[in-house]
Amino acid sequence: MTSSLKEQISRRTSEIEEIIYAYLPPVEGQQKTVMAAMDYTYKAGGKRLRPMLMEETYKSFGGTDRGLIEPFMAAIEMIHTYSLIHDDLPALDNDDTRRGKPTAHVVFGEDMAILAGDALLNYAFETAAKAFRGEAEDITVARAFRILAEKPGIYGMIGGQVIDVENTGKAISLDTLMTIHRLKTAALIECAMMIGAILAGADHESVAKVEKIANRVGLAFQIQDDILDVTSTEDVLGKPVGSDEKNEKVTYVSLKGLDQASRDVESYTEEAIGYYDSLNLDNEFLRNLLLSLTSRKK
Amino acid sequence: MTSSLKEQISRRTSEIEEIIYAYLPPVEGQQKTVMAAMDYTYKAGGKRLRPMLMEETYKSFGGTDRGLIEPFMAAIEMIHTYSLIHDDLPALDNDDTRRGKPTAHVVFGEDMAILAGDALLNYAFETAAKAFRGEAEDITVARAFRILAEKPGIYGMIGGQVIDVENTGKAISLDTLMTIHRLKTAALIECAMMIGAILAGADHESVAKVEKIANRVGLAFQIQDDILDVTSTEDVLGKPVGSDEKNEKVTYVSLKGLDQASRDVESYTEEAIGYYDSLNLDNEFLRNLLLSLTSRKK
Repeated sequence: MTSSLKEQISRRTSEIEEIIYAYLPPVEGQQKTVMAAMDYTYKAGGKRLRPMLMEETYKSFGGTDRGLIEPFMAAIEMIHTYSLIHDDLPALDNDDTRRGKPTAHVVFGEDMAILAGDALLNYAFETAAKAFRGEAEDITVARAFRILAEKPGIYGMIGGQVIDVENTGKAISLDTLMTIHRLKTAALIECAMMIGAILAGADHESVAKVEKIANRVGLAFQIQDDILDVTSTEDVLGKPVGSDEKNEKVTYVSLKGLDQASRDVESYTEEAIGYYDSLNLDNEFLRNLLLSLTSRKK
Repeated sequence: MTSSLKEQISRRTSEIEEIIYAYLPPVEGQQKTVMAAMDYTYKAGGKRLRPMLMEETYKSFGGTDRGLIEPFMAAIEMIHTYSLIHDDLPALDNDDTRRGKPTAHVVFGEDMAILAGDALLNYAFETAAKAFRGEAEDITVARAFRILAEKPGIYGMIGGQVIDVENTGKAISLDTLMTIHRLKTAALIECAMMIGAILAGADHESVAKVEKIANRVGLAFQIQDDILDVTSTEDVLGKPVGSDEKNEKVTYVSLKGLDQASRDVESYTEEAIGYYDSLNLDNEFLRNLLLSLTSRKK
């Protein structure tokens, strides 16, 4: 990644954080412990890739209505955050740290971590519902809403997590592994970019292409995750490495080897870029962002 | 409760179960363990009071479109069910049985119980989103959607659960207890009846009255729950009694005594009926159903 792109992403991350933090419930009142747990995890860092991809896709298709896109940007990051809180729980991945910080259940207790996850998932829909205004455009918002409900669900992200948990320690096929990656990771990227396109009024054909871009990017992103778990260090990554091996997980790298995995990240990214270019969108930053996923180091 | 009303409720429960079960994901595919956990708990019984109140309110205001009301009936029962699964978890209430059956985490493991709860909450919104049809009436559905997202959330049901968990074993005031009851129980009854009214096209003033009916009924229902935990038996109730005392919970009964608690159930119910009658709805069954909450034995 060029240092200029890195700076651009980092500036966009800060801008997005300013936008989406405003949608969090203030940490106050008798529920404040769970609000603190939501707040703590939501603000624990990350590149904010999902809202970033959503917003850039929205802008690429000519979207300009901040009151429509911002609630959905905040919502998808809430869904991503709840999934991290619940995945980290002792009964699931049992991770004590994430991005160098203690996880929610370590800080707030397991009961509050479960409830904070529930609250964030629920609040994602409550937040996105702020885009409904009692006007004709509610029909478009409703289309986006369906995607926001489908992609993270039982046939999407949660489904992927279930298949992942069920197969931990088992010798799974490449087919099953790709199903896990497609559901657990790609589905939420698809969700982000599709909502951006839908809210900007893109036609069905373009939304279908955007879904394909996001799917390939999501797969590349997750395979890169498997690669970094082997090749990176906790210092660079901000989370423990080698956890896949520790948890006896079959990964893309363990099935196909490091070199092939790297080549596949590249070819998925190229496929994504092919679809992207065919849409003739004029957004050099989004194109570079998609490309950078091949070479990301954390 | 008269035996005729009991029969009517029981027949309506069966009819509602037939409707809402059709919205559950079939137990199949690689995610089938979590689908089995969702299915097991969703079908574990109960009077289906929330979808029943929703449907009866909908019909009372002249609603006739099954494709609008049924997804929301299924959705609210999914939300109720997810809350039971998560509340029963070892880190929260740690209940091994509910309605005489082992709870989800006992049967399917804690990991699958957490994920099944997440999946049900998410699927509730996915299911309700089926009522969007890309037409002008989506504006009405969107109004119902906002309520479906708000009432079970951090300022509603989850908020109540948080305050409840935080105060277990503490000497709380009647004020705090009523906040817990209002959020943890009444909010979801409000959600049910308000959505019924909104989808039938009721005006804002009527919806506000419906909210009050549901609020008083919800409070009566929850105080009755506190009463039954003291006065009933596991055989009649289908769940362990005395759990409030076991968990050192301050309840309405422990604060105000059995007699006053019973009188307050009655007066909340009368208040609800007063609002109900002022709406001039012609639904004797709904009126009797609301009244029966005073005298329910389980």
